[in-house]
Amino acid sequence: MTTLSQEELDGIYAFAVDLGKRAGQMLSDAAQIRIDGGNATSEQKEHVQKENAVDLVTETDEDVEAFIKRQIAEKYPSHKFVGEESYSKGASRDYLIDDSPTWCVDPLDGTVNYIHLFPMFCVSIAFIQNNKPLVGVINAPFLKQFFSSCAGRGAFMNETQRLPLVRNPIPPMSEKAPSGCVFSCEWGKDRRDAPDSNLHRKIESFINMAAELGSRNGRGGMVHGVRSLGSATLDLAYVAMGGFDIWWEGGCWEWDVAAGIAILQEAGGLITTANPPEDYAGAPIEEVRLGSRLYLAIRPAGPSVNETGRQSQERTVREVWRRVRNLDYSRPGA
Amino acid sequence: MTTLSQEELDGIYAFAVDLGKRAGQMLSDAAQIRIDGGNATSEQKEHVQKENAVDLVTETDEDVEAFIKRQIAEKYPSHKFVGEESYSKGASRDYLIDDSPTWCVDPLDGTVNYIHLFPMFCVSIAFIQNNKPLVGVINAPFLKQFFSSCAGRGAFMNETQRLPLVRNPIPPMSEKAPSGCVFSCEWGKDRRDAPDSNLHRKIESFINMAAELGSRNGRGGMVHGVRSLGSATLDLAYVAMGGFDIWWEGGCWEWDVAAGIAILQEAGGLITTANPPEDYAGAPIEEVRLGSRLYLAIRPAGPSVNETGRQSQERTVREVWRRVRNLDYSRPGA
Repeated sequence: MTTLSQEELDGIYAFAVDLGKRAGQMLSDAAQIRIDGGNATSEQKEHVQKENAVDLVTETDEDVEAFIKRQIAEKYPSHKFVGEESYSKGASRDYLIDDSPTWCVDPLDGTVNYIHLFPMFCVSIAFIQNNKPLVGVINAPFLKQFFSSCAGRGAFMNETQRLPLVRNPIPPMSEKAPSGCVFSCEWGKDRRDAPDSNLHRKIESFINMAAELGSRNGRGGMVHGVRSLGSATLDLAYVAMGGFDIWWEGGCWEWDVAAGIAILQEAGGLITTANPPEDYAGAPIEEVRLGSRLYLAIRPAGPSVNETGRQSQERTVREVWRRVRNLDYSRPGA
Repeated sequence: MTTLSQEELDGIYAFAVDLGKRAGQMLSDAAQIRIDGGNATSEQKEHVQKENAVDLVTETDEDVEAFIKRQIAEKYPSHKFVGEESYSKGASRDYLIDDSPTWCVDPLDGTVNYIHLFPMFCVSIAFIQNNKPLVGVINAPFLKQFFSSCAGRGAFMNETQRLPLVRNPIPPMSEKAPSGCVFSCEWGKDRRDAPDSNLHRKIESFINMAAELGSRNGRGGMVHGVRSLGSATLDLAYVAMGGFDIWWEGGCWEWDVAAGIAILQEAGGLITTANPPEDYAGAPIEEVRLGSRLYLAIRPAGPSVNETGRQSQERTVREVWRRVRNLDYSRPGA
């Protein structure tokens, strides 16, 4: 187990920020070619017309990951690299992150959005050591939103706007949370209609969070709003920003969340497991394991007269746990 | 019944674009004061600390509507004005739009998002004549996205990017729609947990759209993604852009949708009623009535080998109707 000086970490941060900008530009350029269509160069035009949107996006995904991987290998040849594209093609889905300095990269999160050119897509780059995401960079070029953080240096939007946005003072969590909270969740890809499928476990949980207070045997949470963006990475960025109060999701892989977790934690947010422990009211609230695939995030919160910020976050975690079902996601072979 | 020349309409469009920019700046400035908090002027600081976010937002909402109303009254004293804030305070919720030249304004759509500073909020301004929205302006300042259209002049993002984004050629609707489509929907404010409440009618419809093909007695639609942004206006803008394929919603008022409908229709999208007619497979697909509170929007679509764009849109409408329940929204007194 090695530790890095703040100076070394700052160097890694500056490199990651630059890399995120260049990778975001690649996503943006590839989208622009699809938009320009007939106005592109004749070679591009032929290419765009020959392939469908899904194939074009897969190609971009692979190109961006290869670019990022190459840049990292040149600059930090001793660091490990875990990327979505290369990982998905591997034979195993074992958890690959250990104590060594590791880059964890999703070249394109919000793939469905990118295929349809709905702006909620991004590139996500994290630097991890000793299993802790220390640096996070998220670039959503069609939103012109760039999120970044470095342990000890703060979390930012567009490099100058400190996160969370409202911080003089940072508001505590709603006294009646989840009531008053914006709840972010995703429908995901697992759409099996079986009674105990993840789809139905999720929906039952969503309904509990949304339904009026007093309903559903006391589980109705009457959240202020339910939001689904189709990007786990951006969900986490908006929790760090304070725009979402709660994000609850299962099934993500570490590259979907590593940069978002770095940014959220540096902004003062809390992240733990989506699946309620049996003693949801009293169990210790532990920091999430990066490879767990089950995540519950709470926005940064300041103190109120009666509670510390952390206390109001933990109260919110327990109120969510009381309303959600266990999700069934594990690692193959785990 | 009067008609306007294209020149008169162009003048109204230019005025609406300018008004949308100024109103969007007001929303942005008011949000910035909440963000700056302690860094604002001492008067602003005292004000921000005294009021809670909801009161501050209500105040902004009213200020922006009053500003827009005043500007319109000065420039077009003979035109009618229907605004969310003034309307909600009135004694009646009768449908107020008739054949006369009318401005229909939502000073702030996505109010919950604005309270929490999640960027999906906007000002929405429409000019309507003979019950047709002819000019639409939507300004989402935190997204730096400005949508506008004028009948006969096209629909645009940020004034230069023609909508839909992909237009060389405009893709037809998915052959297996709703499969392959991004489906946009909203949970709304009606959270009653009764078996036949709008909440449960909506959720059953969402599940039908999302579940795997073959499930739910043939209703499983396996949409590509389910999205909820919390702004009907921006939902419509993204359908016009092509980022969303389908938007299905009940309960909106005309100021929530008038500008979005203008932009969607000018971009080539289709808008009809959310509630399936009894003969959903054969009933004529009629243009929505602005005051109906029930909306189903389909993105602009180009021809394929076998269908015109309109045919692929209508096929998609019927496939949605087959999967959704009737919603129970009416006008008080209607």
